[in-house]
Amino acid sequence: MHCSIAQTLEVVGEWWTLLIVRDAVLGVTRFDDWQRRLGIARNVLSARLDALVEHGILERRRYQDHPPRDEYVLTRKGRDLAPVIEALRVWGDRHAAPDGPPVLMIHDDCGEAVHAVSHCSHCGERLRRDHVHLEPGPGDPDLRFLPAMSRDADS
Amino acid sequence: MHCSIAQTLEVVGEWWTLLIVRDAVLGVTRFDDWQRRLGIARNVLSARLDALVEHGILERRRYQDHPPRDEYVLTRKGRDLAPVIEALRVWGDRHAAPDGPPVLMIHDDCGEAVHAVSHCSHCGERLRRDHVHLEPGPGDPDLRFLPAMSRDADS
Repeated sequence: MHCSIAQTLEVVGEWWTLLIVRDAVLGVTRFDDWQRRLGIARNVLSARLDALVEHGILERRRYQDHPPRDEYVLTRKGRDLAPVIEALRVWGDRHAAPDGPPVLMIHDDCGEAVHAVSHCSHCGERLRRDHVHLEPGPGDPDLRFLPAMSRDADS
Repeated sequence: MHCSIAQTLEVVGEWWTLLIVRDAVLGVTRFDDWQRRLGIARNVLSARLDALVEHGILERRRYQDHPPRDEYVLTRKGRDLAPVIEALRVWGDRHAAPDGPPVLMIHDDCGEAVHAVSHCSHCGERLRRDHVHLEPGPGDPDLRFLPAMSRDADS
């Protein structure tokens, strides 16, 4: 498949669901378009779309009454998955795209093919991985999640 | 599980592999630590670790000779998956962590709990999703990947 994200998924998992979301981010809204692009069995695709609707990632909308036809659009929660897709794309472009990136992201403000660079939400500085560490948050009151060595290993 | 990434994966797929990588990013290097943290069957864990070594994401290192014991450390290619993990974490914190984030990322330079904000790699401006569009790149010479509507849908 001509897609770095799909290449990434080949390596790290079996992620039909995320490929459906990827296509939704690209503007796909209709069953037959997903089916053709993904080459996925219709019953499997149908089940995955239903699950995405149940999880509040896609919303079903009637676009035709005779015969009845629905399309699927991303909710806010679904659009929030875009950075996951973007991160998979960047990794795939670097490690699983021997012919170069299949898709370029153009920044309209400067007109260049770009990628995202992480800056700190508080001070605005470039966020370097060796300048951050992890600490337990309110969702882990028993301190069970972070391994004991993570503080050192993270730096 | 006290982990937003795991919560995200509950929704969007069955991703043992990425949970292994997540723990590697947190500093886990030993079979028994993964086994205990993930509660995964030993034969399944063993197969996934082998696959990650084959794909060049983890590297096996002998740390003890009598009896022989190996540990697993991330390669450069593996460390490059950190932004994927981070993007999953951010989504999970927002949409699947009712008790608050289980892990906080502290920026050592400013001392605050922060998240990453995307800036343009070329002009440095904040990268807003409605200020970018996608174009076919060199890895998709037949222009088969981007759907026809994506240019409009992306903006």
